[in-house]
Amino acid sequence: MRDIFHDELDSINETLLRMSGLVREAMTDATKSLLTGDLQLAEKVIAADQTIDDIQHDLDNRTINLMARQQPVASDLRNLVSTLRISADLERMGDLAHHIAKTARMRFPGQAVPELLKPLVADMDRAASAIGEKLSTVLQYRDTARALELDKDDDVMDDLHRKLIGVLLGDDWSFGIETAIDMTLLGRYYERFGDHAVSIANRVYFTVTGEYVTAE
Amino acid sequence: MRDIFHDELDSINETLLRMSGLVREAMTDATKSLLTGDLQLAEKVIAADQTIDDIQHDLDNRTINLMARQQPVASDLRNLVSTLRISADLERMGDLAHHIAKTARMRFPGQAVPELLKPLVADMDRAASAIGEKLSTVLQYRDTARALELDKDDDVMDDLHRKLIGVLLGDDWSFGIETAIDMTLLGRYYERFGDHAVSIANRVYFTVTGEYVTAE
Repeated sequence: MRDIFHDELDSINETLLRMSGLVREAMTDATKSLLTGDLQLAEKVIAADQTIDDIQHDLDNRTINLMARQQPVASDLRNLVSTLRISADLERMGDLAHHIAKTARMRFPGQAVPELLKPLVADMDRAASAIGEKLSTVLQYRDTARALELDKDDDVMDDLHRKLIGVLLGDDWSFGIETAIDMTLLGRYYERFGDHAVSIANRVYFTVTGEYVTAE
Repeated sequence: MRDIFHDELDSINETLLRMSGLVREAMTDATKSLLTGDLQLAEKVIAADQTIDDIQHDLDNRTINLMARQQPVASDLRNLVSTLRISADLERMGDLAHHIAKTARMRFPGQAVPELLKPLVADMDRAASAIGEKLSTVLQYRDTARALELDKDDDVMDDLHRKLIGVLLGDDWSFGIETAIDMTLLGRYYERFGDHAVSIANRVYFTVTGEYVTAE
C-alpha cells in the first residue's frame, strides 16, 4: 500500500540517514585531527561541512515541495515537519564537528589538547560515536526503544564533560589559560553534539508514538 | 483582502513578536543578575524560560494545524515553515539567557564576573539589546533593510567576544581558571545569541524577497 507521498517520505528519511552518517564521520575525523594534529584531516572536515549544509538545504526544499504537492494532514504532516527539525539538528551537529576541526587547525602545528587530557577527549569521542551510531539506528528503524536509551547515553557524555571541567579546575592544572579556554569550548561542543542527538531521538519518539518523552 | 489564513498567520507572527520581547527581557534580566549578583532576578529568568518554551510549543501546534486546515502552497507555505524555524531560534535565544542566569545563580553569593570585566560584559549586553530590539522590528514590519543590518550589528558582538578572549589571555589575568571558564562560556552565550538573531533576520529576508542573503 505504497503511494507517492510515502515513497517520497521514505526517500527524505534516507537522506536524513545519509546526513547522520556524514555527521558521524565528521565528528570522528574532527576528533582524530584534534588528537593527532592532522591538519589535512581537519581541512577535510571543514570542507565537508558545506556538503552537509547543502544536503540540509536540498532536503528542506524537497520537504516543502512535498507538503505543497501532496497536502498531507495529521500524522503525515507531523512527520514531514519533524524532518525539517531533524535536518536542522543534524546540520548543527555537523557545525560542532566543524568547530572541533577548526580548533585543531588553529593550533597547528601545535596541538590544542595536552597529552594529559587526550584519554578523556578520546572517551568523549567514543561517547559521541556511540550516540551517533544509535541515532542512525533510531532514524533508520524509527526505533523508539533506542530513542529512549539515547538520553542515558547522553548522561555518559555529561559525566565526561563534568570530569573534564574537574580536571581544568584541579590544583595541578599547569597548561595555562589558552588551553583551558580551548578545552572549555571543546567540552561544550561534544556536550552539545549529544544534546542535539537526544533532541532528534525525542522527536522520532513523538512522531512514532504521538507522546512526548517525559523527563524523569 | 484578508482571509482566515492570513489572519491566523498574522496572529502567529504576533506571537513570534511577543516571544522576541520575552527573550529580550530574559537576556537583559539575566545580564543584570550576573553583574549585580541578584539571585532573585536570576531565579525569575530561570523560571520564565518555561514560559518561552511553552509558547514555542503552542506556536508550533498552531502552525501545523493551520497547515493542515488551510493547505497553503508557494509563498504562504514557505512563510509558515519559516515561523517554525524562527520560533526554534527564539527558543534557543531564551535558553542562552537561561544559561547566563544559571551561571549567576551558581556563583551566588559570589559573582561570576570580576569587576575588571563588568564593563565588557555590559557592552555585550548592550550589543545583545540592540540586536534584540532590531530583531523585533524585523519581525514586526518584515523590514528587510534592518534584517540586512543585523549581520553588521552582530559583528559588534563578535568584536566584543574577541576582546573578551584577549583579556582572558592577557599576561595580567589574575582571576584563575574557574573565572576563565565561566567567562569563556558566558562569552559564547552572548555570541550565539547574536548568531541566532542573524539567522532569524536572514530567514525573514528570504521569506519576503525570495532571495538568500549572500555572505560578503
